[in-house]
Amino acid sequence: MTLDDFANQHRQRIDDCLLTQLDTLPTMAPRLLDAMKYGLLLGGKRVRPFLVYAVGEMLGVNSDLLDGPAAAVECIHAYSLIHDDLPAMDNDDLRRGQPTVHKAFDEGIAILAGDALQTLAFTILADHPMPTELMANRVRMLSSLARASGYLGMCGGQALDLQAEGCRINLAELEKVHRHKTGALIECAVTLGALCKPDVDEATLSALHAYAAAIGLAFQVQDDILDVTADTTILGKPQGSDLAQQKSTYPALMGLLEAQKLTLQLHAKALTALQALPYNTDILEAFADYIIERTY
Amino acid sequence: MTLDDFANQHRQRIDDCLLTQLDTLPTMAPRLLDAMKYGLLLGGKRVRPFLVYAVGEMLGVNSDLLDGPAAAVECIHAYSLIHDDLPAMDNDDLRRGQPTVHKAFDEGIAILAGDALQTLAFTILADHPMPTELMANRVRMLSSLARASGYLGMCGGQALDLQAEGCRINLAELEKVHRHKTGALIECAVTLGALCKPDVDEATLSALHAYAAAIGLAFQVQDDILDVTADTTILGKPQGSDLAQQKSTYPALMGLLEAQKLTLQLHAKALTALQALPYNTDILEAFADYIIERTY
Repeated sequence: MTLDDFANQHRQRIDDCLLTQLDTLPTMAPRLLDAMKYGLLLGGKRVRPFLVYAVGEMLGVNSDLLDGPAAAVECIHAYSLIHDDLPAMDNDDLRRGQPTVHKAFDEGIAILAGDALQTLAFTILADHPMPTELMANRVRMLSSLARASGYLGMCGGQALDLQAEGCRINLAELEKVHRHKTGALIECAVTLGALCKPDVDEATLSALHAYAAAIGLAFQVQDDILDVTADTTILGKPQGSDLAQQKSTYPALMGLLEAQKLTLQLHAKALTALQALPYNTDILEAFADYIIERTY
Repeated sequence: MTLDDFANQHRQRIDDCLLTQLDTLPTMAPRLLDAMKYGLLLGGKRVRPFLVYAVGEMLGVNSDLLDGPAAAVECIHAYSLIHDDLPAMDNDDLRRGQPTVHKAFDEGIAILAGDALQTLAFTILADHPMPTELMANRVRMLSSLARASGYLGMCGGQALDLQAEGCRINLAELEKVHRHKTGALIECAVTLGALCKPDVDEATLSALHAYAAAIGLAFQVQDDILDVTADTTILGKPQGSDLAQQKSTYPALMGLLEAQKLTLQLHAKALTALQALPYNTDILEAFADYIIERTY
């Protein structure tokens, strides 16, 4: 199966899962429910669910089992976008050309929708049908998702990012922001997929972790590069907007050429990590290629 | 042991636990960590941890085991206060006479601190040392905490409360707000305490649930009554502030005398529920008394 086929098929699958999750909730608080739905549907590429499915299926896990962890990690991602867009945070009115949740609804509902989507992630992960032999792994998944989402992961990364606003930070600090703000959840996605195999070994987990850490960072570096090189119409946001905001980016800190070299190094690191695995890693390899080849 | 002794001892215990949890985190994002600490320390009565300990110890569970669930449920409560106080929600500058988190820090950090405290609750509950025989119960605890905190519980209740703002709602609607906004987490607290006993039976869980539902609602009715009857200095907020804001309250909807009768009925319900339990329920009984006798 090509990467595109796999990605399209599983994007449809996760969208269906997420909608089913929300549609089973009673319409007790309709505006809140609508805002949660709106925020989840603004979600975009579905990179994290993709990784849960790609890793899990590579290890022979049934897709039905993977639906839960995939939906859970996407709920965390969606909540983080809703809160990051708030006026007190990044103050964005648009996301993917659509009004952000606090613009389409209001700030109070946007805060609550984010809160409730974070909780929903843990509900889904705790309640999704799994065989009893996965009980210990399920607790580990819950722990991993919480760690990746909280102070030690995504929330901490967002705090570092807010701290860095208007300051000139160095490369090590920039990497720290990315590894926490986005890397932690991407690493968690592969962990969740892998933990759906009851007897998954620590060597596999650690190789997948290394892969995810490399592609997670490469994704951010490529984002920074595209801000400099890509066309505004393709990008969906004004080209050069990072530059205009004097944001610390990889091209700004190390130059465009060095930044491009860095993505190649990270790509190589990701492929090396996969070589340690005795499984068919075609989809994960193709995904690593896509990360650095993408033009938007 | 008297209720006061038990409550004071366990208030100290949970404060220590919560501080230990935060002190083990690295100071990577110091402002965020400070805001989380500040929000947790504004916490007040510690009713939810009290219930975890009271129920668990009644069932013979070791207090060390109960520390995790008690800390987790308090983290959820603390996060909800931080977010509820935000300008886009209830817009409160003071809580217990102290500046609220967004006043002491800023709105962005307050949103993040709430987010990270919600996550911390799940981290604590997933990671707190528990014997292997509690594995299935731990998953059930995580599920219960998520359900009580999210759309079906606290977040949904806050949405109902926002919806009701400025409207005249009826008694059934008012009860629905309270049962979701505060009742769900109070019921969850007794569930968590009980699930720390590996072989706890469903009859015990259901009796404790009925007890918690009754005292949870009684607590809110008494709050409304105190707003009418208590002295401003004792209350810590202006007496009659609910009335001034034209809030729907029990005294406003049913009259003061009927509201007082309602607390007595709920108190009786709570005690009846306890009678079904073959344990020493003294502390839980005394707590039910306190709920309707308290003057602030």
